[in-house]
Amino acid sequence: MPVITVRLWEGRTRRQKAELARRITDAVVEIAGCERDTVRVIFEDFAKSDWAVGGRLADEAE
Amino acid sequence: MPVITVRLWEGRTRRQKAELARRITDAVVEIAGCERDTVRVIFEDFAKSDWAVGGRLADEAE
Amino acid sequence: MPVITVRLWEGRTRRQKAELARRITDAVVEIAGCERDTVRVIFEDFAKSDWAVGGRLADEAE
Amino acid sequence: MPVITVRLWEGRTRRQKAELARRITDAVVEIAGCERDTVRVIFEDFAKSDWAVGGRLADEAE
Amino acid sequence: MPVITVRLWEGRTRRQKAELARRITDAVVEIAGCERDTVRVIFEDFAKSDWAVGGRLADEAE
Amino acid sequence: MPVITVRLWEGRTRRQKAELARRITDAVVEIAGCERDTVRVIFEDFAKSDWAVGGRLADEAE
Repeated sequence: MPVITVRLWEGRTRRQKAELARRITDAVVEIAGCERDTVRVIFEDFAKSDWAVGGRLADEAE
Repeated sequence: MPVITVRLWEGRTRRQKAELARRITDAVVEIAGCERDTVRVIFEDFAKSDWAVGGRLADEAE
Repeated sequence: MPVITVRLWEGRTRRQKAELARRITDAVVEIAGCERDTVRVIFEDFAKSDWAVGGRLADEAE
Repeated sequence: MPVITVRLWEGRTRRQKAELARRITDAVVEIAGCERDTVRVIFEDFAKSDWAVGGRLADEAE
Repeated sequence: MPVITVRLWEGRTRRQKAELARRITDAVVEIAGCERDTVRVIFEDFAKSDWAVGGRLADEAE
Repeated sequence: MPVITVRLWEGRTRRQKAELARRITDAVVEIAGCERDTVRVIFEDFAKSDWAVGGRLADEAE
């Protein structure tokens, strides 16, 4: 039943997301004892210009 | 005052979202007793490749 | 597959939430064509002191 | 450590977001006493057709 | 119309939240040009045991 | 830099969350190549009476 939202910077490939979804789901099933089919993992990509750390947009900080 | 977030797969038309927003707002006003103008409904579309069920991205599962 | 999050002020009863969940799910199934069992509706209650409108906490505004 | 999410209608420039991130971070550091580098501000832009007020999509309401 | 969510560790007083809501709303009104009454700021408090940094719960990291 | 939110039913222990945070962070670091210290994992617990599946609150469905 869990819903896991993964927010990260854009640029990860479909392959990386597929692997992440599998690994995160494995962890939730093994540790929290949820049924596999009820686990959802949702990815949200962000441009660095939409993500500030320490008060500065991340594309500026580089 | 409520904020309702609807996350679903991309592909719904503007007409479907307009109808959904109306129906959901009707329900909140009638059942929770909120003033209509204070209700917000926000839609977030997701590609199936950003949405995993049971550890597999949804575009793979089909 | 949709995930709907309903954020509102605390004080709604379990009965109101049950009715809201049913009505919102009905709308999503009928309008967006989703399978009923895949729809999740999640409620988050907020104290008015955690919710500001127009720059003032809602318990102050009354 | 705080995570602040700012959801608004699309159309704000990078300059406006940079200024908003700075001002919001300033407020959090001064008032909540957080270390500056731990503050994240994340922007999410929405089309008016994905945002309903009072049961009507915002592009319709104008 | 913006919705700003502020997620931070529990322990901030009502007074601090009131001041934060005012300051954040000021910034959004001045910089993004939104009408004051349409701005919502929502606070979500988290226990340190529900918040991990670098893979360790924050109550453990101290 | 990623922010991962894990929403699940209440009842998981601190130990389970600590282990989940570690495993999820490991996955993000290894697969997405993020620096460990920038990864945040946030847990949100929900009562079954705040979580509906298929239009029925989860405490009713049992």
